[in-house]
Amino acid sequence: MAEKLKIIPLGGLDEIGKNCTVLEYGKDMIVVDCGVGFPEEDMYGVDLVIPDFSYLVANQKKLRGMFITHGHEDHIGSIPYAMRDLNCPIHGTAMTNGLIKLKLEEHKLADKVKLITHKPGDVVKAGCFTVEFIHVNHSIPDAVAFAIRTPVGTVVFTGDFKIDPTSKDGMMDLARLGELGNQGVLALLADSTNVERQGYTPSENVVADSLDRQFRNCDQRIIVTTFASNMHRIQSILSTAQRYGRKVAVSGRSMENMLKVAQELGYLKVKQGTIVDLASIKSLPKNKIVIVSTGSQGENMSALYRMAFSTHKQVEIVAGDRIIISASAIPGNEKSISNIINELYRKGADVVYEKSEGLHVSGHACQEELKIVHGLVRPKFFIPVHGEQRHLQLHAKLAQSMGMNPRNIHIGEIGTVFELTGKTCKVNGTVPAGRVFVDGSGVGDVGSVVLRDRKHLAEDGMIVVCVNLSSEDGSVISGPDIITRGFIYVKESEDLMEELKQVAMEAIDRCQRKRVRDWSAIKSAIKNDISGYLFKTTKRNPMILPVIMEI
Amino acid sequence: MAEKLKIIPLGGLDEIGKNCTVLEYGKDMIVVDCGVGFPEEDMYGVDLVIPDFSYLVANQKKLRGMFITHGHEDHIGSIPYAMRDLNCPIHGTAMTNGLIKLKLEEHKLADKVKLITHKPGDVVKAGCFTVEFIHVNHSIPDAVAFAIRTPVGTVVFTGDFKIDPTSKDGMMDLARLGELGNQGVLALLADSTNVERQGYTPSENVVADSLDRQFRNCDQRIIVTTFASNMHRIQSILSTAQRYGRKVAVSGRSMENMLKVAQELGYLKVKQGTIVDLASIKSLPKNKIVIVSTGSQGENMSALYRMAFSTHKQVEIVAGDRIIISASAIPGNEKSISNIINELYRKGADVVYEKSEGLHVSGHACQEELKIVHGLVRPKFFIPVHGEQRHLQLHAKLAQSMGMNPRNIHIGEIGTVFELTGKTCKVNGTVPAGRVFVDGSGVGDVGSVVLRDRKHLAEDGMIVVCVNLSSEDGSVISGPDIITRGFIYVKESEDLMEELKQVAMEAIDRCQRKRVRDWSAIKSAIKNDISGYLFKTTKRNPMILPVIMEI
Repeated sequence: MAEKLKIIPLGGLDEIGKNCTVLEYGKDMIVVDCGVGFPEEDMYGVDLVIPDFSYLVANQKKLRGMFITHGHEDHIGSIPYAMRDLNCPIHGTAMTNGLIKLKLEEHKLADKVKLITHKPGDVVKAGCFTVEFIHVNHSIPDAVAFAIRTPVGTVVFTGDFKIDPTSKDGMMDLARLGELGNQGVLALLADSTNVERQGYTPSENVVADSLDRQFRNCDQRIIVTTFASNMHRIQSILSTAQRYGRKVAVSGRSMENMLKVAQELGYLKVKQGTIVDLASIKSLPKNKIVIVSTGSQGENMSALYRMAFSTHKQVEIVAGDRIIISASAIPGNEKSISNIINELYRKGADVVYEKSEGLHVSGHACQEELKIVHGLVRPKFFIPVHGEQRHLQLHAKLAQSMGMNPRNIHIGEIGTVFELTGKTCKVNGTVPAGRVFVDGSGVGDVGSVVLRDRKHLAEDGMIVVCVNLSSEDGSVISGPDIITRGFIYVKESEDLMEELKQVAMEAIDRCQRKRVRDWSAIKSAIKNDISGYLFKTTKRNPMILPVIMEI
Repeated sequence: MAEKLKIIPLGGLDEIGKNCTVLEYGKDMIVVDCGVGFPEEDMYGVDLVIPDFSYLVANQKKLRGMFITHGHEDHIGSIPYAMRDLNCPIHGTAMTNGLIKLKLEEHKLADKVKLITHKPGDVVKAGCFTVEFIHVNHSIPDAVAFAIRTPVGTVVFTGDFKIDPTSKDGMMDLARLGELGNQGVLALLADSTNVERQGYTPSENVVADSLDRQFRNCDQRIIVTTFASNMHRIQSILSTAQRYGRKVAVSGRSMENMLKVAQELGYLKVKQGTIVDLASIKSLPKNKIVIVSTGSQGENMSALYRMAFSTHKQVEIVAGDRIIISASAIPGNEKSISNIINELYRKGADVVYEKSEGLHVSGHACQEELKIVHGLVRPKFFIPVHGEQRHLQLHAKLAQSMGMNPRNIHIGEIGTVFELTGKTCKVNGTVPAGRVFVDGSGVGDVGSVVLRDRKHLAEDGMIVVCVNLSSEDGSVISGPDIITRGFIYVKESEDLMEELKQVAMEAIDRCQRKRVRDWSAIKSAIKNDISGYLFKTTKRNPMILPVIMEI
């Protein structure tokens, strides 16, 4: 029996983020992208979500390399976690590798991992696979798609992309996608992020024009916040500042890091002296100042947040400051952004944030752009990726509207094994896949039970009931004592605390009368009685922790 | 010295929700609206937020009545809480009072509170105030504005409104506002919700047309979710269903309640037999079925949520079902709605939710409508209400653009006392105002300390350290025992648990050596040592509760 190509998404299907896909053929395996996801609202205390890498670890010997499409967190963020247990070279473009390097240094893994830098057009052999780098447009420079030659045919990964014919680094290489399409493509895996949106995503140039409008008629200090990784946007801010004779300072760690990488690699064209230190900019007149800051998503402790809430050490918002929010809300961040905007208004700032102002464009292709790529690549099989269920299904419908046979379109989930020959594609089983939570320095030691407890504690707090029982006859030696946290304002609820002691005492007495000597049965009795009593009196359900110590 | 009119917002300024405003003159006081707010993300476990009513309670003797503009929760939801301590008649229109009555019955207060029903055009005397009911358009029927005659001049409250010239119950009474303007209005308090939006809010009729389009070409079951209180929308759904020969069943408690009230009061025009029981609708062919359900905000346990996640007792989503989401996301609910949509897609449903489909219109006036009202009322003073800081400020700018003197525009916050004579308006001090949290049956017993503890517990869980010390020499009799919840998966962390016991033991030993016998000092030592150890080893910061029992 001939070998088959396996395509196995470990992340990014039926979810947003932690994009990671495995290609496997015989004794060879490569990985495309290795991103993180961000915790949902109910993942209390979780810092990051990473893919379950156990399939990669188990197949470590087959691993020939990791190929990264671009430097956003949802494509590179899990690399340090994967690289604790894996060993293979990582291939990316200059900007992408610059950002990966920062990450590896933070995790003290820079010496261990081999980073290999390529340009669009480069072709890399990795086992039986040959990976070609193809230039695409996106909201970070140096993003690429991959055309991967496999023994059964060519697989095209678009990565995140848009078609920006007036992009500063040139339109994405549609010609190459067309050539590949003409030669025959076995499977296409394409970005579904913006498939709900009709038409085209506007060019990044639109934002440059809007920024010019905002700078032109302004004689106040200007503070712009945007995604740190959008170097074309930062370039527009720098160019506009230069045009109006303003100096630019940067605030926020991720922005500083990003700028450092971009400048080192020559991605920013800026006159000597335009970028100045945040400390030195204060001495300039207001109409000579631009501050570029983090915080476009309303993040707690970001530079803009600290400026708004007066906890920034160097910058305080004053009446008249023009704050430009050059970003849109990632779903879930609406409230935090709104809080900052309100606070900026309260300080008397002039805040520009409306969609209608053209201060942000997406980095992802809308329907018409997706259709162009489908029309050029004309794959035999199509697997929509990078999206929640509705995105994947709408992308499947879009492919159908382009004439694809629905039987050749496959919607999977993480862990799904797609098995391809040159003529067929079918789902054949699954591999372990899931969400691994990073909390502090712990990876995977917080799971559903811990999160369930955190949710319970968050909603109603907890009550500890301590009692000392005699090991001889089970009688109460001391206690019960009641300690609560996050339940009720105790100083105004002393009566209730006394009642709870009574309820606990009665539960223990009842056990004694029934000659129950099993500690866990006594704990249950205390727990049930207090829980019932509290629900009756307060309609609340705190976590109750009976602690019995035997003397 | 002549008396002055005091206007005191207790809610709804610099925040969304819990709208409530006091008017006070000499020995008379009235209240306009008495709503609830909904908890923000960081208000763990809080069910509702209500205004601080202490100023009303302290001035109970002056209180002549409560006047309610319409029946939405953010205008009526706090009435049962206020009416525990207050005693005055409540004035509203029929629909509004129908909804208030339901609420009072739930809280067993229906006998205590006098509800008086009025029609637009009615004029009510309450102490020195005379309140006129004026018809406005909004997303609930029977909404009114108030023109309040006071000894120093007329005050106009718009309440929530939009101008809908083709509304089923007629355009709002702009003529009356114009007359009042001609006679002279002292102060205008106007809705700022949609002040960020240019142009006009489309008519509710637009949605009726869109619904027709969705029903026309559908031979499957249709499930529509919308805001339960939007009776014009429900009427459109019923009319469209009748037109296409479909029966309508209702699912979800708030929708059932609302329909009951609306039908009793004659707000719904529907042929006998169109509305049927949910249990009986299942026997009909798919193209004869419409289900109207709650859940348009993605609420956990709402009817649509239960249908999507297969926990609804009577309705299961099947492939082909057309689900129409006739609502937009209230900020903060985006994720929950998105989760339901994904789940519906997963079940094979055809989900219609795009803005572009015209399936929802707002109930609030956009910029051009606001300008019309300002142009008609031409108040001497303007106080923007119903909005966060940015809405209030933008509304102030809008009034300025209409020619108002900025010195006559006042932005306040809750508790601000605006003092008006016939010629002046100024801020003069504050009264107690704030956010009171309702959690279960408790009102005000959860405050910032409890919420801080809940947040702490939510993020990192907690560790209880129990130890029995001898009352004679402070030596350890039993323990220390370690119990954790929401911290780490304990079964895989036994080593860490042992280490924590060691750390606690060493802290106690150290205290013994230093002859520290003060329990609270020993507790601090245990807490600090464990906390430091955990931060070093896990970068986490759980709540640590040392419990010492003395034997």
